[in-house]
Amino acid sequence: MQGTREKLGRKVLVNFQPEGIHGEVDVGTSVLEAARLFGVNISGICGGKQVCGKCKVVIDFNKNVVSPVSPQEEGLLTKEELSDGVRLACMTLLKGNSTIFIPIGSRVGSQRLQTWGLEVDFDLEPLIKKISVRVPESTVSQQSSDADLVEKVLIEKGFRDPKFSLDIVRRLPTTLREGEHRMIVTLNAENEIIDLESGSAITPIYGLAVDIGTTKVACYLHDLKSGELLESSSMMNPQIFYGEDILTRIGHAFTYEKGLKDLHQTIVEGLNKLIEKLLGTRGISRNHLYEMTVVGNTVMHHLFLSVTPRHLAVAPFSPSFSGSLNIKARELGIGINPLGNIHMLPIVSGFVGSDCLAAILATRLHEKNGSNLLLDVGTNTEIVLSVDRTLNVCSCASGPAFEGAHIRNGMRASEGAIERAWIDVSTMDVEYSTIDGGKAKGICGSGVVDLIAEMLRTGIIDNTGRIHAKPSTNRFKEREGVSEFIVEFGSNTVTGNDIVITQKDVREIQKAKAAIYTGSSILLKNSNVKSDEIENVYVAGAFGNYLDPENIRTIGMFPDFAIDKIIGVGNAAGTGSRMVLLSKNVRDEAINLSLNINYLELAAEPNFMSEYTNALDLPHRNLSLFPLTMKKLSESNFQVKS
Amino acid sequence: MQGTREKLGRKVLVNFQPEGIHGEVDVGTSVLEAARLFGVNISGICGGKQVCGKCKVVIDFNKNVVSPVSPQEEGLLTKEELSDGVRLACMTLLKGNSTIFIPIGSRVGSQRLQTWGLEVDFDLEPLIKKISVRVPESTVSQQSSDADLVEKVLIEKGFRDPKFSLDIVRRLPTTLREGEHRMIVTLNAENEIIDLESGSAITPIYGLAVDIGTTKVACYLHDLKSGELLESSSMMNPQIFYGEDILTRIGHAFTYEKGLKDLHQTIVEGLNKLIEKLLGTRGISRNHLYEMTVVGNTVMHHLFLSVTPRHLAVAPFSPSFSGSLNIKARELGIGINPLGNIHMLPIVSGFVGSDCLAAILATRLHEKNGSNLLLDVGTNTEIVLSVDRTLNVCSCASGPAFEGAHIRNGMRASEGAIERAWIDVSTMDVEYSTIDGGKAKGICGSGVVDLIAEMLRTGIIDNTGRIHAKPSTNRFKEREGVSEFIVEFGSNTVTGNDIVITQKDVREIQKAKAAIYTGSSILLKNSNVKSDEIENVYVAGAFGNYLDPENIRTIGMFPDFAIDKIIGVGNAAGTGSRMVLLSKNVRDEAINLSLNINYLELAAEPNFMSEYTNALDLPHRNLSLFPLTMKKLSESNFQVKS
Repeated sequence: MQGTREKLGRKVLVNFQPEGIHGEVDVGTSVLEAARLFGVNISGICGGKQVCGKCKVVIDFNKNVVSPVSPQEEGLLTKEELSDGVRLACMTLLKGNSTIFIPIGSRVGSQRLQTWGLEVDFDLEPLIKKISVRVPESTVSQQSSDADLVEKVLIEKGFRDPKFSLDIVRRLPTTLREGEHRMIVTLNAENEIIDLESGSAITPIYGLAVDIGTTKVACYLHDLKSGELLESSSMMNPQIFYGEDILTRIGHAFTYEKGLKDLHQTIVEGLNKLIEKLLGTRGISRNHLYEMTVVGNTVMHHLFLSVTPRHLAVAPFSPSFSGSLNIKARELGIGINPLGNIHMLPIVSGFVGSDCLAAILATRLHEKNGSNLLLDVGTNTEIVLSVDRTLNVCSCASGPAFEGAHIRNGMRASEGAIERAWIDVSTMDVEYSTIDGGKAKGICGSGVVDLIAEMLRTGIIDNTGRIHAKPSTNRFKEREGVSEFIVEFGSNTVTGNDIVITQKDVREIQKAKAAIYTGSSILLKNSNVKSDEIENVYVAGAFGNYLDPENIRTIGMFPDFAIDKIIGVGNAAGTGSRMVLLSKNVRDEAINLSLNINYLELAAEPNFMSEYTNALDLPHRNLSLFPLTMKKLSESNFQVKS
Repeated sequence: MQGTREKLGRKVLVNFQPEGIHGEVDVGTSVLEAARLFGVNISGICGGKQVCGKCKVVIDFNKNVVSPVSPQEEGLLTKEELSDGVRLACMTLLKGNSTIFIPIGSRVGSQRLQTWGLEVDFDLEPLIKKISVRVPESTVSQQSSDADLVEKVLIEKGFRDPKFSLDIVRRLPTTLREGEHRMIVTLNAENEIIDLESGSAITPIYGLAVDIGTTKVACYLHDLKSGELLESSSMMNPQIFYGEDILTRIGHAFTYEKGLKDLHQTIVEGLNKLIEKLLGTRGISRNHLYEMTVVGNTVMHHLFLSVTPRHLAVAPFSPSFSGSLNIKARELGIGINPLGNIHMLPIVSGFVGSDCLAAILATRLHEKNGSNLLLDVGTNTEIVLSVDRTLNVCSCASGPAFEGAHIRNGMRASEGAIERAWIDVSTMDVEYSTIDGGKAKGICGSGVVDLIAEMLRTGIIDNTGRIHAKPSTNRFKEREGVSEFIVEFGSNTVTGNDIVITQKDVREIQKAKAAIYTGSSILLKNSNVKSDEIENVYVAGAFGNYLDPENIRTIGMFPDFAIDKIIGVGNAAGTGSRMVLLSKNVRDEAINLSLNINYLELAAEPNFMSEYTNALDLPHRNLSLFPLTMKKLSESNFQVKS
């Protein structure tokens, strides 16, 4: 998004995180002013009167790009905040190019993120059990330890070889006597006692399924007895503070002495806040939250565990560990019951994480006969081809364009984002809808896809992606030699600036979709599967549920599948994480599955570059590969430049 | 020990811990002066010139019984020390009755304690293994996680299903690459990886066996590959600060909010210092110390684990947990390899700890045909009767008299203690030997037993324990109406005061030995075993190796066994702890054994009181039960009062 270029004086670039909204403003503009100019939400009860101290922001990296700390700020911020680089947006003036992080506490409104997923049928088979026991009392002539008496009762109730940890041994004597020898005992799947409560009233059992994405984190709170989904919530991955993309975060982790610790603690603390919020909503005690399942890409997996991701960045991209892991919540500092279990699903390879495995579990790809495809679109896109239950997977660096990043007016799917768009072929007028129905602030992933497809259909861009200005409308501009198409004029936007698609934006989308196409196409070729043999194409990921299947095919993100085969499945990884939370069978299935996925390293494919280059065209250099798409496009104003 | 009563002015009582040496001094005497008067060692490089700051002591409980902190002390002590009640002995003047604890760091010389034990044959079968591995490298086309590659190599080497903890997953990537894919992997008996080291040079494996007694703590450092005993060392149990006897410590643990934590931390920190010293002696890294076995009585066991001992003090005396436990060193804060294992041997009952179990393992009582007896003498004495491999055990509160406590000039077995003594029947002169061969400071357990037996033999006391003054010598005195026998005159002692056995001391010994006799006798009766059917009587414990079998029988500590059947076995509990450290077989044996010991609660025995009362006499009210002893005594000046 572009600042007010009209004003006189030197300009500085400002980049608001985690939204990734950026643009230019005059030197000396306050951070709060700049945020309002760009439609970025910052809380401020006093309305900029410099008294409430609520508009806290963090100046990232170089602190000298803004005005020094004022005496008022010193009064309103704690020493700790000041040393952490916290500033008040209303009193901080921009002096140079800066990156400003807006903490959750300083936000107004919430992000709209994809947290609902595909629903599948499976048996509820939770791993945590609670039973009420009446423990007999020891006598002087028949002495037994407390644990021996409890063990005997548990064995009578069918729990073989119950295990007592040191913590439980410590709590047992008092809990037993407080409840006059009546207790509620909580056991996990290994018959390890993980909780003791006095009395005879059975208390609830809750579990949490988590999907840690590079960009967003989704949490699902379940009642483990009924299986019911009680709450779900999501947040931006707070590690974004250390870099939007995975490589920057890997770099941070091994460049700085405390880098890995920073990233680890940031996600743990962020999750803890989210958990606290979820529990607070329902008035649930953290002690009744006994199990948490975690999926994520391999880097997120490593960072969550505080395992160096360094070797994931260089060939042969080796993870430290890829099996499933069970870790006591206390060991990771996660705010559930301290003896609760954090179950990390297995990962497949350096580039294919447990989120992909979870998406397979949710789509049941491993159970389907025939050929089926799953794409989990994100900054890295994982593509899984299942051919008669044999699974082949690859990962491609699709970049963050579909998440609204690296796009001039791109933004994540939150308030004010254009999520759907249509262009009138004769007037070039744009009809669109925003997420909240209000004024537009920017464009999110699905909106960008719609716009590129519509621009192609209306001849605004040709098959090579080049913008062709139409003299009949004032929607075309050139700025510093770069063509842009005006989606909405400044007079109708939140910021007062035009919302545009630039030539560079089109190129970004071309690169992203070409990477995904190439991965899909090589997977199909290597398995000798033709595109019309594919039965279903499941598209999961951040924009999975808003996507227009025809538009996504029109830009050539994957081979020329029939529209009705393309099924948006939302956050399938989150759904898989929930299944593993609720079912021991699915958990075992995940472990077996992880050992039976063939990973294809695209970088090792000789045809990769030529395939990729051909796929940069919209929909593809070889149009004969896209008969279904061409049938539609040929009815429109589609321009082919040979 | 008695202060200098001759001096004028008000007297105060002072009690030095952990020795338990106590007596009276004038008000205004410095702590250092008082310590020297009583022969208690306190370091002080400057010799009392108030400049070196080395003579640190801790004023226990009431801090107002001494002079306020002086400006010099403020300069020589840290704030932390001052708030912990640390004072300098040379500048602190006694104002009221006080208890002074002398930390290890402020001591001169060392305690002589029983740490060597019985040696038995068993197979070395350590639980920790180290292997050198060459881990293949992953390739881009054949990607594997680091852990998968290591696992494969370990499986090839015969380690089934090796387990990776989070810590190992964290260390693996860097360790693997630092050693260019050569590593030393350390595994425990469950094939859990507990250490990774770069390179190919096999490093050592050490283990530590510990015996935590109420009064003393013994440690044995072993090389787990050769089994060799490298070092052994011992210390006073620093919990003595919170009370000499078990009941006082239990009281502290549940009376004060932080009481249990105090006791737990005190033993952990004390052990850590001892471990550091042991490792320092040999230049061994704590990371190579992978396993530690711990035995102790049930209260010591609970306090070491920070489990409340509260319910051990009241019927039905229930321990929290009695099975064996394996705990990560890190979880307890023990200064060995953080992933090393602390193995707690099982306990038998509230009054029969794992120390008793270990003593059985060491004496192999459970393998012996016929009838055998084991007595582990301490503040609580455990008595085990084995009849054709069936084990019956009881515990009796024998009190600390045999450890030198509650005896006027009693002291523990350290420098200056009279450990052996003989009385000339005609002159009543006492011949004695001290532990260091120097001047006498007090009398330790074995010395007290010798003196009581000799006093009985020479007619100084009669069978009821009453002292009969002999006018022919100046060795008899009366002080405040209590008779005493002077063992050594003040002119020849360290303190300048007489060393005596008082009428009260005799009573203490009578009570202690009566308790042990009663336990032994009831055990024998309940199994229908006659005393002459016993094949061996193993006497373990603090004074086990110094004891004179005849004297101990003369006072009637147990039934009238033939002298050659009485075998001192020293610290058998420590030996058992070492066996469990060195052999997986013995460890398994311990677990089985703990389930097959019949515990007899003496308090529930109807005959207990009448048996006990009869056993108060020396050797016993019914002399016909002691034919062998009587044969010896009748040759002497033994006086029977009917």
